[in-house]
Amino acid sequence: MTRSWWGWGTVEDAASESETNELVARISALLPGHDLTDHPPPDPAALEVPAPRITPPGSLARRCSADPVDRLGHARGKAFRDVVRNLRGEIGNVPDLVARPREEQDVIDLLDWCAGAGIAVVPYGGGSSVVGGVEPRFDGPVLTLDLTEMDAVLEVDPIGRAARIQAGALGPRLEDQLRPHGLTLRHFPQSFGFSTLGGWLATRAGGHFATLYTHIDDLTESMRVVTPVGISQSRRLPGSGAGPAPDRLFLGSEGTLGVITEAWMRLQQRPRWQLTASVSFGDFPAAVAATRAIAQAGLYPSNCRLLDPAEAVLNANTHVTGGLLVLAFESADHPVDAWLERATRIACDHGGLVLGTRARSDSGTGDAAGNWRSAFLRMPYQRDVLARRSMIVETFETACTWAEFENLHAAVTTAAQQAIARVCGGGVITCRFTHVYPDGPAPYYGIYASGRWGDTVAQWDDIKTAVSEAIHTAGGTITHHHSVGRDHRRWYDRQRPDPFAAALRGAKAVLDPAGVLNPGVLIDPIRVAS
Amino acid sequence: MTRSWWGWGTVEDAASESETNELVARISALLPGHDLTDHPPPDPAALEVPAPRITPPGSLARRCSADPVDRLGHARGKAFRDVVRNLRGEIGNVPDLVARPREEQDVIDLLDWCAGAGIAVVPYGGGSSVVGGVEPRFDGPVLTLDLTEMDAVLEVDPIGRAARIQAGALGPRLEDQLRPHGLTLRHFPQSFGFSTLGGWLATRAGGHFATLYTHIDDLTESMRVVTPVGISQSRRLPGSGAGPAPDRLFLGSEGTLGVITEAWMRLQQRPRWQLTASVSFGDFPAAVAATRAIAQAGLYPSNCRLLDPAEAVLNANTHVTGGLLVLAFESADHPVDAWLERATRIACDHGGLVLGTRARSDSGTGDAAGNWRSAFLRMPYQRDVLARRSMIVETFETACTWAEFENLHAAVTTAAQQAIARVCGGGVITCRFTHVYPDGPAPYYGIYASGRWGDTVAQWDDIKTAVSEAIHTAGGTITHHHSVGRDHRRWYDRQRPDPFAAALRGAKAVLDPAGVLNPGVLIDPIRVAS
Repeated sequence: MTRSWWGWGTVEDAASESETNELVARISALLPGHDLTDHPPPDPAALEVPAPRITPPGSLARRCSADPVDRLGHARGKAFRDVVRNLRGEIGNVPDLVARPREEQDVIDLLDWCAGAGIAVVPYGGGSSVVGGVEPRFDGPVLTLDLTEMDAVLEVDPIGRAARIQAGALGPRLEDQLRPHGLTLRHFPQSFGFSTLGGWLATRAGGHFATLYTHIDDLTESMRVVTPVGISQSRRLPGSGAGPAPDRLFLGSEGTLGVITEAWMRLQQRPRWQLTASVSFGDFPAAVAATRAIAQAGLYPSNCRLLDPAEAVLNANTHVTGGLLVLAFESADHPVDAWLERATRIACDHGGLVLGTRARSDSGTGDAAGNWRSAFLRMPYQRDVLARRSMIVETFETACTWAEFENLHAAVTTAAQQAIARVCGGGVITCRFTHVYPDGPAPYYGIYASGRWGDTVAQWDDIKTAVSEAIHTAGGTITHHHSVGRDHRRWYDRQRPDPFAAALRGAKAVLDPAGVLNPGVLIDPIRVAS
Repeated sequence: MTRSWWGWGTVEDAASESETNELVARISALLPGHDLTDHPPPDPAALEVPAPRITPPGSLARRCSADPVDRLGHARGKAFRDVVRNLRGEIGNVPDLVARPREEQDVIDLLDWCAGAGIAVVPYGGGSSVVGGVEPRFDGPVLTLDLTEMDAVLEVDPIGRAARIQAGALGPRLEDQLRPHGLTLRHFPQSFGFSTLGGWLATRAGGHFATLYTHIDDLTESMRVVTPVGISQSRRLPGSGAGPAPDRLFLGSEGTLGVITEAWMRLQQRPRWQLTASVSFGDFPAAVAATRAIAQAGLYPSNCRLLDPAEAVLNANTHVTGGLLVLAFESADHPVDAWLERATRIACDHGGLVLGTRARSDSGTGDAAGNWRSAFLRMPYQRDVLARRSMIVETFETACTWAEFENLHAAVTTAAQQAIARVCGGGVITCRFTHVYPDGPAPYYGIYASGRWGDTVAQWDDIKTAVSEAIHTAGGTITHHHSVGRDHRRWYDRQRPDPFAAALRGAKAVLDPAGVLNPGVLIDPIRVAS
């Protein structure tokens, strides 16, 4: 399989001709008049990638690649704006070198070299950032540290159900190594195939599941981080009250405080019982109220995904007037009928209508839940098809309290609709809840709008600014699980308490005194070579 | 009710004559030959408390007390070694002033004054620290900041089930204000009556419940902290992936980074269905295996407390040869029969014998679970009775992985028994699990040993050193929920990753540049006035 240098995933899995045609036909119907001319990617070998400004010392040269296409493929993440810039051959800042350490000592040596020589270091897992997290948006030489050759499961503890895993393991590689033990990390972000454990930890990734053990934070037992001033190794502990939690400083540090090399992760038995149900609602507020009641009932569904009517029709091929709630429960220990029964009873008490119930949500397609899951994994590939055809297709997400949701949702959809009308004429906004908590949902929005080729990045940036302002003003977080990177800095800085920012800068000054680690992410560069 | 200046809780709730007699009789039987002479507390007015070395500026004087007995009552926490030193009239360092802010501006003004004048500040909630967390174990002037006059529930959000609560609210005061809303924080540490929300947050307190939402960390939606450089206010968010979690830096900071003044806390409906069962086991390893299986089953019992035979007989009045497992489930939403049924089935599959099942664990006494709960709340008062009679009665706790538990437990009990034999002749060690996680238990140990009056603090310190070394060496944490304070520093420093320690010092230097906040806790003083 060949990774796409410009778009999502692999070349082999890109949308087929029939998938493309079907998609284009749907968009024609949705946004008649949109110019669907295809703009294929340029030949990367023909793009003028500048020569590297740095040369690795002899011992490190074997770990470093100066290949232009390799560097191009590591120059940015996989956001809509990244893909479009690639399609247009706007290469921006390309890392001078891509280093691929094979062992921890390589990481240490590379960091030593870069800190000493004033070379910025961008830690890089699967490169699926959608927030500019791996893009060297600054001047001066930069080395991108691709961890994917450190991808082994080093140790498995079947008693405590945990494993010591190298940070560079991509999702499938990680699960392949756990499967023989009957265990799973059970962390399935949409980027699963193209993101790594280290990336998940550095960005506080959210998994596929709606409640409880789905965030990478909660699956982390201990971490090992190479910082420029030494290795931080926390103990394997199921719980501890010894001072502020050390791992919580590195979780979400987005490569600014150190390079995560391995972690002990909490695992689970693979589920034996799975039940799923789809419930339709006549109006959206009732669907939200039902979802909230289920989230507060102490039932802990593995799925509790509320789709608004636009999301339901576009991605689950199901027509509803108010909303579609996809519920699922799973267990490796016991049948979950009592759990699903209670959850659907709550949904019905709020006016829901059960469309169908199935054992094993992953056994087939044809129902709303199965449709949605298949569509989910194809979404980024389809996004690329549409990006080539001047569409603006992007997502953004937040979390807020239940009481704030109605106001936030109205403000966000209004802001999106106004911005779309202003910058591009026609478009659609969709909403679903990816995660639900007893105290609030995590709404996830999709934008499908008609852009003009050459302007779509600027058009999206306008829309993004409008919705981000709306989210911030309505009390939401600028990101629930996409992380901050460089794109969310403006709002992150306003959301984050000032004394915490000062503390973070204090910590960074101590751990990364040369200021070489991922400059500009989370905090302003302390010192950056230029 | 009058708070005891020297011992646990209130004077009115101290052990009655009959409770004392019964206890003394049990100890006589357990440790025949122990000298049970009573050493009552001295008259605090007769102790020579030095005059304050500092005088508050006019505007702050009305918030400050220089009363010797008031200061004496704030001079240390409520560990065994604190109580014994009080009983012996060894007053140690007494704060120069006890300040009782009534509003946040008072806290700001007091911090400003202290930072400017080089006066150390010890933030103080209920004063129930058992690790020297509130004891000014350093030279120089010190002001103890008692937050208990800031104890209001300021706002309740019934939709998101959360409340904004002032940090100085003691447990009962907090629950009394939530009860009319049908909500509860459901955080019941043993110190519930004599500890505050702010104290729980600052020390990462563990609640009464065995799994899921019991740790104060997980109940925290947002925090407000007055630091010497400004106020840190995080957003109310059910979840967020925006950088390292700000609240997680202050959770467990033990008064070293700022003074927590309020927090939005996640609440729950009061439970309507409660079921509890007691299961006995013939051998301890089987009981541990059963407990592990239940902890890993995804059932999330509210109680899953495994008592070893000594703990079962001493505190639940139940004779078992291997262990007593107390299970409970509760819900505000649905009957929990299916849950308890599955958990007891797992226990039986591991050789357990169900002794009894009851609806509502708090409705009565007489069963093992009820006995245990009543005993639990009396333990600290009974500890005081025994401390007066030259007994060494203290607890310590840890957490470790399931695989490490057998070795850790053997190492700890051996170390305890050897230390007891060496320093005092006879004694008993008991063990229970206070919390269980899918990846490991939190074992909690009790020591009942025969000491010599005048030596019991030194004797306990010897035992504590031995068991702490054993815990550290076996891979456990030096504290699961008692926090670090000053007593755990030696082991905490070895357990904590060095780069994290450096980062914490970096953060402290920025937030508390004068180094006045709780010097010596977690990290060495940066600058302390002397």
